[in-house]
Amino acid sequence: MPQPVIATVGASPIGRTDLPGRDLFSVALAEAFEGLPDPVDLVGAVYVGNQSETYEHQIMQGTLMAEWAGVGMVPAERVEGCAAAGALALRHAVKDVRNGEHDGVLACGVEKMTAGGTGGATDALSAAFDRAIEQRSGVTAPSQYALLASRYLHETEATEADLAEIAVKNHTNAAANPRAQFSEAIDAETVLDSPTVAPPLKLYDCAPVGDGAAAVLVTTAEIAADLGVPAVSVDGVGAAANNVAVAERDMTHIEGAAAAAETAYAEAGLAPEDIDIAEVHDAFTVCEALLSEAVGFAPEGLGYQSHLSPEARDDGWTDVELSTSGGLKARGHPIGATGLLQAIEAYEQLTGAAGGRALDGAEHALLLNEGGVADAVTVVHILSAGAEPDSGVATGTKEVTR
Amino acid sequence: MPQPVIATVGASPIGRTDLPGRDLFSVALAEAFEGLPDPVDLVGAVYVGNQSETYEHQIMQGTLMAEWAGVGMVPAERVEGCAAAGALALRHAVKDVRNGEHDGVLACGVEKMTAGGTGGATDALSAAFDRAIEQRSGVTAPSQYALLASRYLHETEATEADLAEIAVKNHTNAAANPRAQFSEAIDAETVLDSPTVAPPLKLYDCAPVGDGAAAVLVTTAEIAADLGVPAVSVDGVGAAANNVAVAERDMTHIEGAAAAAETAYAEAGLAPEDIDIAEVHDAFTVCEALLSEAVGFAPEGLGYQSHLSPEARDDGWTDVELSTSGGLKARGHPIGATGLLQAIEAYEQLTGAAGGRALDGAEHALLLNEGGVADAVTVVHILSAGAEPDSGVATGTKEVTR
Repeated sequence: MPQPVIATVGASPIGRTDLPGRDLFSVALAEAFEGLPDPVDLVGAVYVGNQSETYEHQIMQGTLMAEWAGVGMVPAERVEGCAAAGALALRHAVKDVRNGEHDGVLACGVEKMTAGGTGGATDALSAAFDRAIEQRSGVTAPSQYALLASRYLHETEATEADLAEIAVKNHTNAAANPRAQFSEAIDAETVLDSPTVAPPLKLYDCAPVGDGAAAVLVTTAEIAADLGVPAVSVDGVGAAANNVAVAERDMTHIEGAAAAAETAYAEAGLAPEDIDIAEVHDAFTVCEALLSEAVGFAPEGLGYQSHLSPEARDDGWTDVELSTSGGLKARGHPIGATGLLQAIEAYEQLTGAAGGRALDGAEHALLLNEGGVADAVTVVHILSAGAEPDSGVATGTKEVTR
Repeated sequence: MPQPVIATVGASPIGRTDLPGRDLFSVALAEAFEGLPDPVDLVGAVYVGNQSETYEHQIMQGTLMAEWAGVGMVPAERVEGCAAAGALALRHAVKDVRNGEHDGVLACGVEKMTAGGTGGATDALSAAFDRAIEQRSGVTAPSQYALLASRYLHETEATEADLAEIAVKNHTNAAANPRAQFSEAIDAETVLDSPTVAPPLKLYDCAPVGDGAAAVLVTTAEIAADLGVPAVSVDGVGAAANNVAVAERDMTHIEGAAAAAETAYAEAGLAPEDIDIAEVHDAFTVCEALLSEAVGFAPEGLGYQSHLSPEARDDGWTDVELSTSGGLKARGHPIGATGLLQAIEAYEQLTGAAGGRALDGAEHALLLNEGGVADAVTVVHILSAGAEPDSGVATGTKEVTR
């Protein structure tokens, strides 16, 4: 089986932008393709993660992005699992390369959330909930996640101040990430004093709305070596769908995430304690706590300590550093692009291109991308520095400055 | 490599229905799973073809359908390429089985077109066109296909009466198909005298709007043999995306369809003259003519003879019978389900379950499902009767009566 690797990456600015989705994609792709000889010839298929057609009244994003990239007559399609769309696209690219379907596959994500569409982002995201049962009750994403947060604060020692510290950590990390939507550090008071969105979640517990696009080329270790580009290997992938309705689930044990992680660990031959950095879909601060437990970084009920340095956490925690990019919370969360933005952070950390936020010696990264409330669908990727053939992989870096 | 087969199928009624999409899916799945021992245990992944979230304000159809099927904690996702969504789902199921990712995969499609949504079917389908270039000009699907039809009538000997005869043939076929939306034969005058939609296309040149769902289980030949169910092998799959904008394409040479078919023929080791029956996405009558040429059944400019019996067609035509189900035109076209409804027709024809519309001795079927105008994205499957291991495959039939 060929070893799938990520060989080049690119992203648009994230936030409120002046560009339509497909132009954001062009910006992302231009960065990914910069300096590669005939990059279009490397692309045997295109997968596009995109959450909602309502923002721009546009479906067929698979063909549209392939056309915009100048890639002709290859399979191209959109995949969707709400906010997990980006990782679903990446997973297909990895599977296609691993299975020998193609030597190179472009995994893309795009979302133009600020375009408004028929009802704006809150309305578009509410379509992820069960129409018959949940939507008709008027639930939104924050109100559903507030249920999880309330339960988590009830069952554990965690406090709202602990969740606030997760936001503080992630904004601090984002301040060192030129790709991030937010570039300034905040303090805990800013979080705790921010307007309530759905108690106990306040404005700064929530990831922002924003536009963005990302592009990642998955290819073989051999081709990456031939290109002379830094590459990270994709060693494990897992995906699992729990049910849609949060009422049917255990709100503090994110079982779908645990199942997806278990598959990914098994494929990679790695355990939670081997992971150096992780991005775990912190759409709301409580997610980072819950998901740190689900994937085995933290003992049950102690995930909220993710904001502490490894040495300050209680026994049983691994040494993983979480959300070095700033996470969804502060790097930003342009829905369909998010899973690929997570991959970009891992790529930059594992190829020595993470600049001031680099974690020295990081070898293994875990990425967790979810759609719906918590684990309605979860995709986990495990990536490792270097890539077979070892001797041929360049270790140069490509710094992002913006 | 395991040989992927279709081992069981099911569909909901097609047309204006009283049920929401997920209940239509339940009807389809109940038929597919009927009589199988522990069918849920066979499902390692779920792919759902679904065109538009606007009809029912519902995304996350992958998880929703997996939940509704009682399939827990497996990968589940929605795939979208407008009207090609169903075949994109089927293609993933085939790839997963062929690559040993799973022993069984459920490929589903669902569309609740009559739910209305924000702007109804015409508006939802127009989202398949380029927002910046095409949608702002007010184009709709019929108006775009009318451009193709005008050009085809200009370049060939075909007349509007020829296109009308394609509709007549497909309604005749539908009258023998208990799954069809339309159950009565029509005559050419009915087509020619029907209201103009976009000249030269009249109402009866156009496939109808309708609700529907379909479910197809793809598994290995061995498992199908163990289950003792009739199975058809999936011998070739091809997919290709041309560009979105029809203005950039040759309107009478459907190049994406030709490319997808070429891949499928090569995988199957078959040629156009080997194909006995075909369903070629007759969303409009002219499509059957154009696509008969693109996949090599008809010489250039003679595809409009698809309505004639094989012996009455000009030299160079193969003996293929087109749209035995009634096609999109009369069997119906519930967008996300259509590619799977095509597979159901092939399954029934190749397992002796096609009743009064059976083509005696049919061994090979070609299915072509498209999204966008013509070949913005095309998926082609080639299926064959029987399935290795030959000795173990049951030849029993399961008749549909409704």
